[in-house]
Amino acid sequence: MKDKQYLLIPGPTPVPPTVFAAMSRPMFGHRSDDFAKMHKGIVEKMQKVFQTKNEVFVLTSSGTGAMEAAVSNVIKPGDKVLTLNGGKFGERWTKMAAKYGAVVDEYKYRWGSAADLKVIEEKLNSEPDYVAVFATHNETSTAVTNDIAGMGALVAKHKALLIVDTVSSLGAIEFKTDEWNVDIAATGSQKALMLPPGLGAITVSEKAWKVVEENKTPKFYFDLNACKKNIAKWNTPYTPNVTLFVGLDAALDMIMEEGLENVYARHTLLANGVRAAAKALGLELLADEGCRSDAVTAVLSPEGISAEDIRKVLKNDYQITFAGGQDDLKGKIFRIAHMGFADKMDMIIAIGALEMALAKVGYPVQLGQGVKALQEVFLGRN
Amino acid sequence: MKDKQYLLIPGPTPVPPTVFAAMSRPMFGHRSDDFAKMHKGIVEKMQKVFQTKNEVFVLTSSGTGAMEAAVSNVIKPGDKVLTLNGGKFGERWTKMAAKYGAVVDEYKYRWGSAADLKVIEEKLNSEPDYVAVFATHNETSTAVTNDIAGMGALVAKHKALLIVDTVSSLGAIEFKTDEWNVDIAATGSQKALMLPPGLGAITVSEKAWKVVEENKTPKFYFDLNACKKNIAKWNTPYTPNVTLFVGLDAALDMIMEEGLENVYARHTLLANGVRAAAKALGLELLADEGCRSDAVTAVLSPEGISAEDIRKVLKNDYQITFAGGQDDLKGKIFRIAHMGFADKMDMIIAIGALEMALAKVGYPVQLGQGVKALQEVFLGRN
Repeated sequence: MKDKQYLLIPGPTPVPPTVFAAMSRPMFGHRSDDFAKMHKGIVEKMQKVFQTKNEVFVLTSSGTGAMEAAVSNVIKPGDKVLTLNGGKFGERWTKMAAKYGAVVDEYKYRWGSAADLKVIEEKLNSEPDYVAVFATHNETSTAVTNDIAGMGALVAKHKALLIVDTVSSLGAIEFKTDEWNVDIAATGSQKALMLPPGLGAITVSEKAWKVVEENKTPKFYFDLNACKKNIAKWNTPYTPNVTLFVGLDAALDMIMEEGLENVYARHTLLANGVRAAAKALGLELLADEGCRSDAVTAVLSPEGISAEDIRKVLKNDYQITFAGGQDDLKGKIFRIAHMGFADKMDMIIAIGALEMALAKVGYPVQLGQGVKALQEVFLGRN
Repeated sequence: MKDKQYLLIPGPTPVPPTVFAAMSRPMFGHRSDDFAKMHKGIVEKMQKVFQTKNEVFVLTSSGTGAMEAAVSNVIKPGDKVLTLNGGKFGERWTKMAAKYGAVVDEYKYRWGSAADLKVIEEKLNSEPDYVAVFATHNETSTAVTNDIAGMGALVAKHKALLIVDTVSSLGAIEFKTDEWNVDIAATGSQKALMLPPGLGAITVSEKAWKVVEENKTPKFYFDLNACKKNIAKWNTPYTPNVTLFVGLDAALDMIMEEGLENVYARHTLLANGVRAAAKALGLELLADEGCRSDAVTAVLSPEGISAEDIRKVLKNDYQITFAGGQDDLKGKIFRIAHMGFADKMDMIIAIGALEMALAKVGYPVQLGQGVKALQEVFLGRN
């Protein structure tokens, strides 16, 4: 039964059969009318998901490519920037900005907490020369969602651009690019957009274009000015991943058919269920209350039991993959994703199998109690 | 989330991705060396599944086509036959045999029970002229498995052929064609063989060939003598469903890789789990103890609640399909299949969702208790 694989990691996530079927479309050229028409439709749908009137550029790269595009099109050597680092992906902004020669002021916040708006406000007020503030909407490594609306209200009063990593949030957790004053948002295909890895996407605000247009930092593949020039005719500067564009078109159609509000509500329901199940099993969550992600849940392994042992049992005995912890959290947490092509039965599997794995590693689990808590949430009783 | 569909009916059953991927092989001709080579491999593997040295003919038809081949190649008008009818599929033998002009002695046994060997023995002893005895290995409509080994030992002493419907058992429940003295066994592709509907298969013993070779009953498409002539060169008399043959080859490879003993053990484990879960939820089973099927379980709906209401909630709210009852059993039972491409997590889903559906239709269910019973079986604690 090797064909039975249950992927519950925060990316890549399972791909719906409808998307894979669409991707079987025979190859066609990217300079064709067919491509241009599809590209236009994709951008219009991506604008709805990003809730923006800005251009959306779909890049043939991972989400990190889109993040680099944000950095290389904005930063000049010596620019002062503020990075918000409360996990592996916040840390990535710091590394990237430094690589491009920025003078980085890094605000490190505790893993499991959200960035404190008061700290950000103080930093913005004390340093008027920040060119950009780099934030993470959903910090995948800690299962924390940051308050981007709050950050946007603060940053909008300054010359700095607000640049946000939405890789693991877009399509799972509501994101209002324009209303929240986000200048650049970068995302990837392999999370809540329900696609295989291979595409990134980026939005650019009017305020950001003024910086991007004047930026002379060497870049070629991720040059947003080239993207802008090409998108006027629904082209891309270089050969795009045509097949993934076809898949993205199909996945966005699925999202539109379900309705964005319903998509977010589904993610919230699944997250509530998993949190209730963890509690019922006597397990603690890594993320603080109030900033817990609706896309992924990080659960602390019980005292004396390595999360890696639980993950091994899940994989070997039930072909279920949870994510582990990164860096200092390795062995201490496991992460259950509920993003993208995920629904109630996936959580029933996750918790049903988790209970059996906990029993196997010697945790005094009450079988069925996590599933019961999940069922109560799904039935609206909790 | 329309793409999330959980099919738990006793055929058609879910098809593994590996099989669908194999079926994407570009089309090729059925009079080619490629086809002959594949056909030979399929027959050899089918012989292992049937546990027979007899030829196995794969027919481009449903399982009913294979059953009709058994009837039309054996029966002459006026032949005396014994049919064993304890459900919809036993009844089908009666109808078919009558259609071909047989004088049918029908032994009706109670739905939910197995055919009584003593009754069969008495009938065989009192009627030496039976040309054939028609039996059902796994009666899908009642979730009962009959004792074919016992029947074979009885029928072998007489001139009658033992003809067995193995449509919903082959590949799920061990079947020993030769050791059990089965003369003709007929099956279909869409159950435990993990394929879409569209193929049947049939075995013919030496004893049966003597009857088949002399039979003059009009038939063309299902003429087993034509099949026999063609298989010498790994041909089929008429155009076979090439794509389903490719799929069958892949599915049989999966079965061989898992190992037949492991396949049967998996079905037994799932059946034990579902039975334990039903008991834990206070639900009764239709089939008598001792003859319960390892391929499908028929559960009696609680007093005052229609099984159809439970099935509607499962389908509408959780996109899960259980089978209902047929004829007099409609509304009284639901059937959960655990055959073919089915494993532990499918049962966790089935029971987890069943509990929620029972809660919704007003049954005083203790959430999580069925799942707990299932987990205990899977953990070897029960």
